[in-house]
Amino acid sequence: MRMYDLIYTKKLGGALSPEQIAFWVKGAADGSIPDEQSASLLMAICWRGMTTDETLALTLGMRDSGKRMDLSSVPGTKVDKHSTGGVGDKTTLILGPIVAACGVPCPMFSGRGLGHTGGTVDKFAAIPGLKVELTDAEFLRSLKETRFANSAPTGNIAPADKKLYALRDITATVESIPLITASIMSKKLAGGADALVLDVKCGPTAFMKTLEDARTLAQSMVDVGTAHGMQIRALITRMDAPLGWAIGNALEVMESVEILRGEHGDSELAQMSFRLAAEMLIMGGAAKTLPEAQAKVQASIQDGSALEALRRFVALNGGDAEALDDFTRLPQAGQVVEVRADRGGYVTAIDGRALGLLAMDLGAGRKDRNDILDLGVGIRVQVRVGQRIEKGDVVFTAHAKAGFSLKPEAYLATLSLADSRPVAEPWLLATIGC
Amino acid sequence: MRMYDLIYTKKLGGALSPEQIAFWVKGAADGSIPDEQSASLLMAICWRGMTTDETLALTLGMRDSGKRMDLSSVPGTKVDKHSTGGVGDKTTLILGPIVAACGVPCPMFSGRGLGHTGGTVDKFAAIPGLKVELTDAEFLRSLKETRFANSAPTGNIAPADKKLYALRDITATVESIPLITASIMSKKLAGGADALVLDVKCGPTAFMKTLEDARTLAQSMVDVGTAHGMQIRALITRMDAPLGWAIGNALEVMESVEILRGEHGDSELAQMSFRLAAEMLIMGGAAKTLPEAQAKVQASIQDGSALEALRRFVALNGGDAEALDDFTRLPQAGQVVEVRADRGGYVTAIDGRALGLLAMDLGAGRKDRNDILDLGVGIRVQVRVGQRIEKGDVVFTAHAKAGFSLKPEAYLATLSLADSRPVAEPWLLATIGC
Repeated sequence: MRMYDLIYTKKLGGALSPEQIAFWVKGAADGSIPDEQSASLLMAICWRGMTTDETLALTLGMRDSGKRMDLSSVPGTKVDKHSTGGVGDKTTLILGPIVAACGVPCPMFSGRGLGHTGGTVDKFAAIPGLKVELTDAEFLRSLKETRFANSAPTGNIAPADKKLYALRDITATVESIPLITASIMSKKLAGGADALVLDVKCGPTAFMKTLEDARTLAQSMVDVGTAHGMQIRALITRMDAPLGWAIGNALEVMESVEILRGEHGDSELAQMSFRLAAEMLIMGGAAKTLPEAQAKVQASIQDGSALEALRRFVALNGGDAEALDDFTRLPQAGQVVEVRADRGGYVTAIDGRALGLLAMDLGAGRKDRNDILDLGVGIRVQVRVGQRIEKGDVVFTAHAKAGFSLKPEAYLATLSLADSRPVAEPWLLATIGC
Repeated sequence: MRMYDLIYTKKLGGALSPEQIAFWVKGAADGSIPDEQSASLLMAICWRGMTTDETLALTLGMRDSGKRMDLSSVPGTKVDKHSTGGVGDKTTLILGPIVAACGVPCPMFSGRGLGHTGGTVDKFAAIPGLKVELTDAEFLRSLKETRFANSAPTGNIAPADKKLYALRDITATVESIPLITASIMSKKLAGGADALVLDVKCGPTAFMKTLEDARTLAQSMVDVGTAHGMQIRALITRMDAPLGWAIGNALEVMESVEILRGEHGDSELAQMSFRLAAEMLIMGGAAKTLPEAQAKVQASIQDGSALEALRRFVALNGGDAEALDDFTRLPQAGQVVEVRADRGGYVTAIDGRALGLLAMDLGAGRKDRNDILDLGVGIRVQVRVGQRIEKGDVVFTAHAKAGFSLKPEAYLATLSLADSRPVAEPWLLATIGC
């Protein structure tokens, strides 16, 4: 088999066989295929696309390049969640405990943040003592004893994806539906869950800008999961603002706990987390219909069992569970600075990407892969899309290091204002497979 | 400037600025841009194409990466020729001396052959003693004293093209109109001629399979040349057989000399060479109209001045000019083997590519860049397209090393036969700028 022939076939718009794709993935990972040939094929894939069979073969090739979790010793249907990512997205911290409390095992591997997006693992790391890199045995123990496990990937999960992603990153080939699909799904399949709910974000600052693009990506992932025999569903959700009021690690833990306590129940963050959890309950066999699943979710909030599931997960894995009830035990910022509106109007959008970068400047996110985070800093977004603000209103509260000098105008620039109230738009744009 | 942005722009179908293209070419050549980024951009160019401005910028960037010939000391309009290549193509050996004999300086740089195609330099090398790698001073002297100069490129002509071509070769990005255009035109512009005639071959075994493709490539080269202020014309010529009866270096010298002597005047090879020469005479200012130019070409054959121009070129550059009149002084093969038809019919096509590979097997061409050629071996094609042959007729004569055992069936397989006479098709399919 010659790599040249694969490139040439794809360049002309043909489909590659599973054997050809396995040959490529193996060669790209072990270095026997030079990067320039992989780069050329990657761009040809951006051009010509891939069939579901090809995307599945790429997914499986990358999955099989490394370690696979074996969750068969855990009874029940294991249900995972994936989000394409957004600033302030802490749904894992909320829905994981809910799903676990409702009896469905929820195994999750989460990443660290880089650039404007925070990572779920960093948010968990804000809980003092909580171990966020679990060994396989610790992960399984957590899943068995608390029905929830979350860890940074340990060991060699889909190393071929890591290798190819690094190449895509410098060759402008990240944006390709089949490549994105295979990258996500290879890691999800390696994680060992039986079912998966996807949250595909859509909006001007999201990875997918239009509903059409978001739908295409969601459908592609659903197709690949289905072809592999996995239960899989997708929500397409609007992203025109950060998710929730908190950006920054300890702040996001606080907001998650508040929602598990039953606060902010009408916020988009709560509604989105509850809906994702409900879909997971249905796939996990804990409910037959959406109303039944939603009732179970609400019950787990009302009776405190969801928050208790989080406490048990934290305690089991070395964390300070009391910090969930006493936020003064969480990392704190040195100073709190209010940012006040310099004019009035209706908020029509809040630029999450820009706020993510401002939070990164505060120390909540990483500019560079090796940066050490300040877990206490972050931004409290005091307004919501649709809200009327007046000049002088506090619109943001920055939790910063002592002595940090921030530029209020950069914060204010993230707000889009209009004279008339914007039409309220639903957060849920579409579902696939639900 | 970041290479990533160039790739991303081209991926989305945008145009790159001349500065961006210069940045890329420089970085690709000096290694500051990694090959995987160049490979990705090359595939994106295959996908999205390039404007004439972009192609010109790429052409100039590659030209300027190395040495440029300065022919300003040679009076007159210097006219060059380029062919996209075909088996048996020895037009340079014929039209160079004709054009020179008619008073127009004809500077040419030619390559060595590889694979099924022979190289003009190898054909000249079959003339004993002839120096085929001229220094700049020798090249200029030859052009001034004989109005003809032909040499393998010496020194560093368009090294960025060499580098990118090697990359294209392994990344399936050779076939791209703007990349082919820039590769050819960068070397032609570096050669220093003022005018250029192109012979773009079209046919099932040519690089361009359809008239549409051939026209697109020809137009692209004409556009880039014109944008650069060069006189440029193109002929699109049919290729459904080897050009002329000779394949193999000494044999091709013999055929060229025979045409300069006035033999085979009605062959396609002669007609094509004469027409290309006529276009060159018009661009060189030696004739105003095509009939006038064609008459001058014929006169140079009739009065022997074209052949004399070749003798002078050979003698000046160390070659045995007597070998042009006494072919026994040229390299000879050890044995001559006749291949006879195993059935009768009308010849509808002769597979030049396959014959080129058979000639390579004989030792006339290089499998590998470092192979040493046997200049005396080759194939005499004894039939032409349209001709009726009968079983037992000699259709090929193989000039082989003593002891070489050839497979006649491979030779016969290159002939397409039909029961009825094929419609005669013109060798000249189209012209551009003529």
